[in-house]
This record gives sequence, C-alpha cells and structure tokens, in this order.
Amino acid sequence: MAAGSFRVLAVAGVGLLGGSVALAARHAGLVQRVVGIGRNPERLRAAVSAGIIDEFRLESETGTADWDLIVVATPVDRIASDVLKLAASSRPGTLITDVGSVKQAVLEPLSGRLPRGIEFVGAHPLAGSHQSGFEAARADLFSQRVTVVTPTAESSESAVEQIVEFWQALGSRVLRMSAAEHDSSLALTSHLPHVAAAALASLLQPDQRELAASGFRDTTRIAAGDADLWVPILLANAEPVLKQLTAFSQVLNEFSTAIRQRDDRSLRQWLETGRLSRQALDAGQKQGQSPETD
Amino acid sequence: MAAGSFRVLAVAGVGLLGGSVALAARHAGLVQRVVGIGRNPERLRAAVSAGIIDEFRLESETGTADWDLIVVATPVDRIASDVLKLAASSRPGTLITDVGSVKQAVLEPLSGRLPRGIEFVGAHPLAGSHQSGFEAARADLFSQRVTVVTPTAESSESAVEQIVEFWQALGSRVLRMSAAEHDSSLALTSHLPHVAAAALASLLQPDQRELAASGFRDTTRIAAGDADLWVPILLANAEPVLKQLTAFSQVLNEFSTAIRQRDDRSLRQWLETGRLSRQALDAGQKQGQSPETD
Repeated sequence: MAAGSFRVLAVAGVGLLGGSVALAARHAGLVQRVVGIGRNPERLRAAVSAGIIDEFRLESETGTADWDLIVVATPVDRIASDVLKLAASSRPGTLITDVGSVKQAVLEPLSGRLPRGIEFVGAHPLAGSHQSGFEAARADLFSQRVTVVTPTAESSESAVEQIVEFWQALGSRVLRMSAAEHDSSLALTSHLPHVAAAALASLLQPDQRELAASGFRDTTRIAAGDADLWVPILLANAEPVLKQLTAFSQVLNEFSTAIRQRDDRSLRQWLETGRLSRQALDAGQKQGQSPETD
Repeated sequence: MAAGSFRVLAVAGVGLLGGSVALAARHAGLVQRVVGIGRNPERLRAAVSAGIIDEFRLESETGTADWDLIVVATPVDRIASDVLKLAASSRPGTLITDVGSVKQAVLEPLSGRLPRGIEFVGAHPLAGSHQSGFEAARADLFSQRVTVVTPTAESSESAVEQIVEFWQALGSRVLRMSAAEHDSSLALTSHLPHVAAAALASLLQPDQRELAASGFRDTTRIAAGDADLWVPILLANAEPVLKQLTAFSQVLNEFSTAIRQRDDRSLRQWLETGRLSRQALDAGQKQGQSPETD
C-alpha cells in the first residue's frame, strides 16, 4: 500500500471536516471503503447518497468493526469519549486520529486508557470554512494547509509516521509538535482573535453600523462563527487562552498609556511592532508557507 | 451650475485621497480647473503629468488665488493650520472642506478664526486603500461610500448644502452629524480596531507564523497600515479612543471571567452578542447601505 493508505477508513462525525477527510482520502486513492459514523441515520443516509461515504454505522451500535483508521471529527468536547467508545469496537492494529482544534484536552483523558494494540495520534488540520455540514465538504480542503500532529511519550514511532503520511497524502504540510506547544500557539493564533473579534463586534451599536468600514469588517469577520463550536474550544483550552487574554490586555494598556500621555514615540513603536509582525505574515504567505483558514 | 459644482477646485495634499477628489470631481464634470497645493514641486509636477491636477501652487506661495473650493487632504494633525493658511490667500466666498479621519481636533482650532466670508465645513469620506500616493488615486474612490459631513453652530446652511452636494456628486452617501458624534463612533468603528489589530499582531512570535490561519490574518489585516498616518489619528481622537479601549478591555474581562469560571452560559452569550452584531453588519452590506473601506 502507498504511504498514508488504509483499507477501510471510518469517519466519526460526517460534517464539513469529516466529510472532507472522506472525500480527500478517496480522491487520493488512500482507502478502499469509507464508513461514516454518527447519531442521525437520516443525515448519514444523505451522506451516502451524496457520495461522501460508502456506508454508515450509528455510534450506538456495538460489535467489532473492520476499519483500519478512524478519523474523529466530532466537537472538541466529545472527541476523547468518542475515541474510547470507538476503540472498544475496533480490532487491534487500528489507528485513530482526530481533527480537534485543541489537543491537550483530547489527549489527557486518553492517557493509558486505550485497549492494547490501538493507538491514537492527535492531529489538527488548520483548515475550515464559514460553512458547515457535509454538503460543504471538499476533497481539497486540506491541500496546501498546515496540519499539526501531536505525538506523546506513549506514541509509537510507526503510528506517528502513518498518521503523518495520511495527512500529507491529503495534501497537508505536517508540523509535529507537543500538544502543549500546539495549544499555547493556537490560543494566540486562533482562539484569542476569535474572542477579540467577538468583543469588538459586541460594542457596535445598531446606529453605528453604517460607519463601520472595511477595517471593522475585517477585524470582526470571524465573530460571525458558530458559538456552539467556539464555546467548547475556548473552555477546552482555557488556561492558554486566559494567558493570551492577559498578554493582549497588557499590550492594550500600553497603547492606552501612550495615548493618554500623548506619547507619540511609544505609540509609534507599538504600531510599528504590529505592522512589522503583520507584514512578515504576508511575506510568508507569498512563499506559500502559510495556511489560509482554520 | 449643477449642484455640487465649483469653477476652480484646489486640493491641498495631492495623495491618494486628494488625487481621488481631483479625478472624481473632474470625472463628474463638477469643476473646470484643478489646482494642486503641496510642498514638493517634483511630486506636484508629476501629478500634473499624470493628469491628476491641471496646475500646482506651492503651499509656501502667498497672494490671493482664484479657487472657489479647497479640499484639504493633508495629515489630520496639519489640517487646521493648513485651512487657516489657505483661507488667508482665498477670496471671500471660498468654501473649504477636508477629508480628515477626526473632526473635533480639526474644527476646534478653527472656531472664530476664519476670515469673514470664508467657511469651513468638515467632511470625512470613509474610503481609502492600502496604497498611498496620487498614483493610487481613483475617480470612483468615493462611489457607494459613506461621507460624514459635520456642520457646527457657526456653519451657514448654504455652505453645508454646497459641501453635502459636492460629496454626493462624487458618489458618496452623505451622513450629517456633529463632530463629537462622528469622533465617538469612529473611535469604535475605525480607531479601536486598528489598535486591537496592532496589539494582536505584536503578540505573534516568528515561530508561530505558520500557525496563523485566516482568522488571525483577517483580524490583524489593518495592522499593516502606515504608523505615520495612525499616530496623528489616535492622538487627535485621544479621549474617545481611550473610552473605547476601556469598554473593549471590560468586555475582554467578561470573557476572561467566563472562561476562568468555566461558565459556558455567559461565554455563549458573549459570543452570541458578537455574532449577531457582526451578522447584522453583513445584512446591511447586502442592502448596499454600508461602506467598504475607511
């Protein structure tokens, strides 16, 4: 078999991300059969009809299944328990990965609790869309995107290799790092911007809307995201997010002090620091080194 | 003459905004001749060659000129003094307007100080670009954009009418409000987002750049703006900006408290408030009621 390939792929949670994993894996010729796992038989039947999955199994069903790889794409606060449930009906040798936006909260409850012969290697593809549901799934969702893979001390090198190759085969550039490192960086690069955007948007009064131009629109765009998705992410990564919120408030205080004291030199320095940091990001993107969505 | 038209238009500061006023006014057939006013004869000559202005005058030149309308498009901390200087060499009946992002700081130094027969009516077109210089000027820069006009108790209704008609003739939807109301709203809709974006961007470490996806990119996009432009704006609108920074910090504190206490209900409420506010903005845009740039 080619690197990253598995005979039977199971996808738990056939939404935008799970559906895209199914499409991308088949498109890349990595799998022979895709089983969708979920709660809602009507939605799963529709996903079969749409050609996203070949067959489905309700998550309430028990009995050993023949899948070789499971990708868990359920909400972040359910991933760990879904992994344990699915592992219980999997054969030894089965590998499990996920797409969760937070990694320590997924990995910690699994430590030492998986059946012998079954391994979980966490992953987070920095890809997404404003849309949701398998109807928005795309075979190229992970193409040119970064996927972070987070091995632990319990991970076997061969399991990590297979998961890395799987995400690479879906088109991702894979970065390996610890779950703690991932969560700390994503608290800044994804979770804090979401809170900042929501906080900014919440200050806008209806009669000020026509004065909100592109700057306000860009800065608050992600505030339109689904609260059902973001509440579990922010709570699952609470400590790193709180740390970044504190750091952010401190910088805002520096701006306030500079403005209050009419200290144009400090104010210019803070604006310049932000400008240079933001411009370096665009320079990286031009080199095709950066993801476009999360 | 048609509503909003003037025989001779002078534009002080022939950059992106001033150059676009010149192009738009001629394109709309509002003016017969455009005089560019500035400091740098080479740049002004180039603007004549580029067809942006018909002729130029250095700002150091004195002697009465024959312009009927002056649009002052210099940096916000220079507008008031430029208005006074230009008014001194203008004939009675000359009207003056501007494009400054802050209005009280422009209007207060002018109160009671203009020569008899010369009126200033402040304006702020919510239009712009990431580019600068007259090379980026466009005749349609103000088309479908909001321009705020800020009359004072000293303004004559006829002067206000003429300035409103001028900006309308350039394609803007004009909103009239007091300078205080303008500055307070723009502190939220433009100046605070700029500070928030710069503060967020400044927290990003070089090794975290590849983990910064579209959410971070959108939220920090305006941080790439020119500090030379933004230092004077933030200082000229210091008190309203400080007030908004305080309000923003308070909402961020509410988020922190909800996350620290694992209070998913409050967290969801804050995210929902932001989401609804942001979605209302998009709904307004679809109705063509909102500006796209500032």
